[in-house]
Amino acid sequence: MKISQLFTKTIKEAPADETAVNAKLLIRGGFVSKVMAGVYEYMPLGFRVMEKINNIIREEMNAIGGQELQMSVFQNKDVWSATGRWQSAKDVMYQFKDAADKEYGLGFTHEEPLAAAARHYINSYKDLPRAVYQIQTKFRNEPRAKSGLLRGREFLMKDLYSFHASQEDLDQYYEKVASAYGRVFERMGLKTIRTFASGGSFSKFSDEFQVEADIGEDIIYLNKSAGRAVNKEVYTDEVLAELGWDKKSLAERTSIEVGNIFKLGTKFSEPLGLKFTDEKGDSKPVIMASYGIGLGRLMGTVVEVSHDDRGIIWPESIAPFKVHLMSLSRNEQAEEVYQELTRQGIEVLYDDRDDKTAGEKFADADLIGCPWRLVVSEKTGDKIEIKRRSEKDSRLVEVPELAKLFL
Amino acid sequence: MKISQLFTKTIKEAPADETAVNAKLLIRGGFVSKVMAGVYEYMPLGFRVMEKINNIIREEMNAIGGQELQMSVFQNKDVWSATGRWQSAKDVMYQFKDAADKEYGLGFTHEEPLAAAARHYINSYKDLPRAVYQIQTKFRNEPRAKSGLLRGREFLMKDLYSFHASQEDLDQYYEKVASAYGRVFERMGLKTIRTFASGGSFSKFSDEFQVEADIGEDIIYLNKSAGRAVNKEVYTDEVLAELGWDKKSLAERTSIEVGNIFKLGTKFSEPLGLKFTDEKGDSKPVIMASYGIGLGRLMGTVVEVSHDDRGIIWPESIAPFKVHLMSLSRNEQAEEVYQELTRQGIEVLYDDRDDKTAGEKFADADLIGCPWRLVVSEKTGDKIEIKRRSEKDSRLVEVPELAKLFL
Repeated sequence: MKISQLFTKTIKEAPADETAVNAKLLIRGGFVSKVMAGVYEYMPLGFRVMEKINNIIREEMNAIGGQELQMSVFQNKDVWSATGRWQSAKDVMYQFKDAADKEYGLGFTHEEPLAAAARHYINSYKDLPRAVYQIQTKFRNEPRAKSGLLRGREFLMKDLYSFHASQEDLDQYYEKVASAYGRVFERMGLKTIRTFASGGSFSKFSDEFQVEADIGEDIIYLNKSAGRAVNKEVYTDEVLAELGWDKKSLAERTSIEVGNIFKLGTKFSEPLGLKFTDEKGDSKPVIMASYGIGLGRLMGTVVEVSHDDRGIIWPESIAPFKVHLMSLSRNEQAEEVYQELTRQGIEVLYDDRDDKTAGEKFADADLIGCPWRLVVSEKTGDKIEIKRRSEKDSRLVEVPELAKLFL
Repeated sequence: MKISQLFTKTIKEAPADETAVNAKLLIRGGFVSKVMAGVYEYMPLGFRVMEKINNIIREEMNAIGGQELQMSVFQNKDVWSATGRWQSAKDVMYQFKDAADKEYGLGFTHEEPLAAAARHYINSYKDLPRAVYQIQTKFRNEPRAKSGLLRGREFLMKDLYSFHASQEDLDQYYEKVASAYGRVFERMGLKTIRTFASGGSFSKFSDEFQVEADIGEDIIYLNKSAGRAVNKEVYTDEVLAELGWDKKSLAERTSIEVGNIFKLGTKFSEPLGLKFTDEKGDSKPVIMASYGIGLGRLMGTVVEVSHDDRGIIWPESIAPFKVHLMSLSRNEQAEEVYQELTRQGIEVLYDDRDDKTAGEKFADADLIGCPWRLVVSEKTGDKIEIKRRSEKDSRLVEVPELAKLFL
């Protein structure tokens, strides 16, 4: 993509009401545009990053047997009333009536509609286990939306739901998902800490995946030798005794939750009548679990933990482009490099603008944060200057060497 | 994918309130599940079809320079008030207040927010032309949602917006998009008729892409020799005279609009202050156009025009799977065929269930509607019975011949 053709430009100043680093850098870089507090639009650069995150998640969810689908945003009041959440979730769920007094809710999670839909398809132990997931826009009434993309009123989420005939089967699959989550975050360059968090009526704990960061809204207590942590919400003497953890050995940490997984038991299947007939012919409620990853939040988290004072430093796996190429004077040679790398399938953002100074071009490259920067200029002669965004030193390479570096 | 593992099953009866053929077949086949009138969930089979439609559209939009992005569902009242549509679109736009009296609208189209976002990026003639598009869930208050997926309250849509410095540039690009639309529909096996429809303050006509079908909500008058039509809404003596069309030679047709393209002029850029500086240094409003395709509607239209009394007949380009393989008795051989075709990258839905009769399996294959049906049974010996969904006759082929047929 040539920058002269790109829909966005970099912006000098983020909106004054934006305090989070992630939103400031993503807005200034042209990745997102702000609609209102907690609501962002993904511009082409941001969309590319999001698609790469989505694809990593899709690969890992498909690998554990997840079948992708797409639930609706509009929620049916009757289905949510069956579990009591139409009332109990009123604080977070946007609910409204249209002119004809018909009531709607906007989905912030999808346990109820999935349990309801599954009634058409799951009747026998032969129909279990099953796992389905979606990548979908969700809505949550946040009175004080802040922290940029970390806590939105409208946000993209991956949610997986699994259905089982027995607790043992659920327990096994739950650990498979936990491993898949570890791979998702690792592939994006994020170190996560699996963290005990509050459970519910069917499980003592849920599990969160936390990333250490200054901006995080969670406090966790890290057991370094176990590589696990407990969330402050379950940081009690009783829990520590159960885990056999010594309070003195734990380190307090301000962190970001990027994923959580939750054993639901029969909390949703019982009120909604999602049952199956077991081998003996007995009717039993299906056992469920749900597993979430906030995608906008994930993108924001990467920016929070991977930036410097000049801009974003994208990991290669989710960078909008692998290479940021700029021409300072020798456009013809730069154009050749652009064509050659593109031909080889390497994603190149090419700053071909002739009305910008070298300083402006370098500043844009640092702000946008592609992993590799290439410079073609009088100074570099026949060679190309190459530098990693994450490193200080550059070096000169011959053109034929270039492509090998990126493949 | 093995049917024994698929999340959905076929369903004997669609909901009683569902009258449209497209919704009946898609629900019975397990492609979609109904949430409420005008709101459907895409189950894994339906999701696969939708992804194929999306990919065709993405390829054609990228080919004409469209840059993909993702706008928000939540709409900013101030931005829509600037053009007057917060008031004038109240009938179709869901609008509501949260507990703190903050007002939200749900997007049914995105001219306003795109013009608003573009103000950050378009300032000079050098920043034009630009074209951006998204594939996104939209919402529209339909008092009487009917016709299944053809007219939803919640629906997936592709919308492209283009920005130009001159009317001539817009006119040229508009025809490029029209050609791309033709290719999109053709690749999905749909014959469309480009149709003059009502324009607006900036253009006499807009253009619709209409598909002849019994269920359609539009009436058009077709000029067979020109291969074009006029929508009833502009079917006046004046318009016909302008087009030089003889009323007597036109054929009336009940059809479905699957796409429309619209010259907007400066209708949105002027009130929102989207301006650019031209070569002479003069400030001018940007000239815009918008181009829509309803994706759920497109999927529903394909089913309306391509089915029989036993089920759906998918065109190969958007079928959930290319091949529907079933084993009637010889599971081992069927499993081998499944593995071999899958290994070659051919998408196979394999009915491996051993608790279904041959009749049930044949009925499911016809309902789901994959383009090719393969049967392995005692009767077929070492060979495989192969039949097109759209044809009556089957024939026997050797296994090694099989893959060649599909690649």
